[in-house]
Amino acid sequence: MTDATSNTRTMLYEGKAKVIFEGPDDGTLIQYFKDDATAFNAQKKDVIKGKGVLNNYISEHIMQAVGAMGIPTHFLARINDREQLIRQLEIVPIEVIVRNVAAGSICSRLGLEEGEELPQTLIEFCLKDDALGDPVIAPEHIFTFGWASPEELETICEDTLRINDFLTGLFHAIGVRLIDFKLEFGRIEIDGDIEIILADEISPDNCRLWDIHTNEKMDKDRFRRDLGGLIEAYQEIASRLNIRIPDISKIEP
Amino acid sequence: MTDATSNTRTMLYEGKAKVIFEGPDDGTLIQYFKDDATAFNAQKKDVIKGKGVLNNYISEHIMQAVGAMGIPTHFLARINDREQLIRQLEIVPIEVIVRNVAAGSICSRLGLEEGEELPQTLIEFCLKDDALGDPVIAPEHIFTFGWASPEELETICEDTLRINDFLTGLFHAIGVRLIDFKLEFGRIEIDGDIEIILADEISPDNCRLWDIHTNEKMDKDRFRRDLGGLIEAYQEIASRLNIRIPDISKIEP
Ligand SMILES: Nc1ncnc2c1ncn2[C@@H]1O[C@H](COP(=O)(O)OP(=O)(O)OP(=O)(O)O)[C@@H](O)[C@H]1O
Ligand SMILES: Nc1ncnc2c1ncn2[C@@H]1O[C@H](COP(=O)(O)OP(=O)(O)OP(=O)(O)O)[C@@H](O)[C@H]1O
Ligand SMILES: [Mg+2]
Ligand SMILES: [Mg+2]
Repeated sequence: MTDATSNTRTMLYEGKAKVIFEGPDDGTLIQYFKDDATAFNAQKKDVIKGKGVLNNYISEHIMQAVGAMGIPTHFLARINDREQLIRQLEIVPIEVIVRNVAAGSICSRLGLEEGEELPQTLIEFCLKDDALGDPVIAPEHIFTFGWASPEELETICEDTLRINDFLTGLFHAIGVRLIDFKLEFGRIEIDGDIEIILADEISPDNCRLWDIHTNEKMDKDRFRRDLGGLIEAYQEIASRLNIRIPDISKIEP
Repeated sequence: MTDATSNTRTMLYEGKAKVIFEGPDDGTLIQYFKDDATAFNAQKKDVIKGKGVLNNYISEHIMQAVGAMGIPTHFLARINDREQLIRQLEIVPIEVIVRNVAAGSICSRLGLEEGEELPQTLIEFCLKDDALGDPVIAPEHIFTFGWASPEELETICEDTLRINDFLTGLFHAIGVRLIDFKLEFGRIEIDGDIEIILADEISPDNCRLWDIHTNEKMDKDRFRRDLGGLIEAYQEIASRLNIRIPDISKIEP
């Protein structure tokens, strides 16, 4: 990592897919996208050259569009191929999972077939806690333990459903079915009011995206299931979205 | 089983702790309490002589009191030492778990200490599906898959909180702390209206009950954790509640 480990700034957190550094101004952070891929709560690991760059560009593209809908996001600017300037938030310790079609963990958990259209869009919540395996929780747990207030969760759900509608349309337009995705939100206090802000990333790392005609997977399931061709799939998503991506073969790790 | 296997009536369902027979009249069932004890999704099994009789009498006592609060229950009459006449319901396939204090599965699931007072009373829902291990679900799952309607779930939650208040008081009066318990509800159509009705049983098999002074467990955890003295604990609960129980040593299985 040339940039990520440079000594000129303070690393605050190293996650599975990204590193968070102190930002240049108060209330800002730098989000660095690594090439590391993990799955099944980090039991499976690999490095996939160029993945971080693709996610950085794709997430920039989507976050900007979501911001333009009037949903506040943490995204401020892309700094370079691997880094974004973002607003520093207090992360709500909940993974918000939106499911339009059954895939992944819900299939074994509730006995559904992969690819089964759900009777209606389902928002699931998991506690962000790797040591506990990100357990499924209900709003009651969130309020009981104070992870978010009812008002915060209402805003999160409203934003989430709007983002689902928007992303469903965005991907539909490029021949891709949005099966499910994961969001994170954070909070910031502005003049004593709490504002809920979309955080983290929106990329093929945390969406399931299937080609509308072939059902081919164009997301991180290519890594989870050893299907190969992950970079090509992410590049295809970027290219259909008209995002200009630098030549991955020339990218430094 | 003398009564349970008698040929004069039709067995409809044999569960882990009870058997359900056709009742004498349309819309009625007979609920037969076995001595079988199971835990950890039936991986652990035993027969504890007299347990079924104790649960039959304790559940009769509590169901009658809950009915007297104006909460409809399936209980119609106790027939004998092991059997109750109940109303036939369409069971809502959800286990409603009420937790006042952390104990059991929630401790490992959410990283809590056993005995930790919860910040507020927590209602959890699990899908009643042994093959899936009764997974935790949220109201969103319940509505998405149509397991109950929002109105039905609202009634279930209102009844459940009232039952928690009532049981907390009932047990407090006899020196017992109500840690948590599990309820099941069913529905019945009356003149085109759906009525939600408390079903199953309320007994030390599905409550956690700790002596207020000694913290001694007086519930099925004595079996789950091989503590012994289960019958004595259930007898103590019955005796403190002033329920007259027949001499267990003379009871037939
Ligand atoms: N705007 C923000 N302010 C503060 N923290 C953020 C912000 N956006 C994202 N984060 C956090 O930065 C981290 C990003 O790193 P990464 O996604 O690699 O984490 P991770 O290993 O997946 O762990 P986690 O399971 O916590 O996401 C996450 O913990 C995420 O919650
Ligand atoms: N009023 C009722 N009408 C219809 N079914 C009922 C009624 N009350 C309870 N039941 C059902 O009768 C069965 C009672 O048997 P038991 O408690 O032994 O089942 P179990 O093995 O614990 O299985 P489960 O996990 O379904 O409770 C349960 O399936 C319960 O849902
Ligand atoms: Mg993450
Ligand atoms: Mg049962």
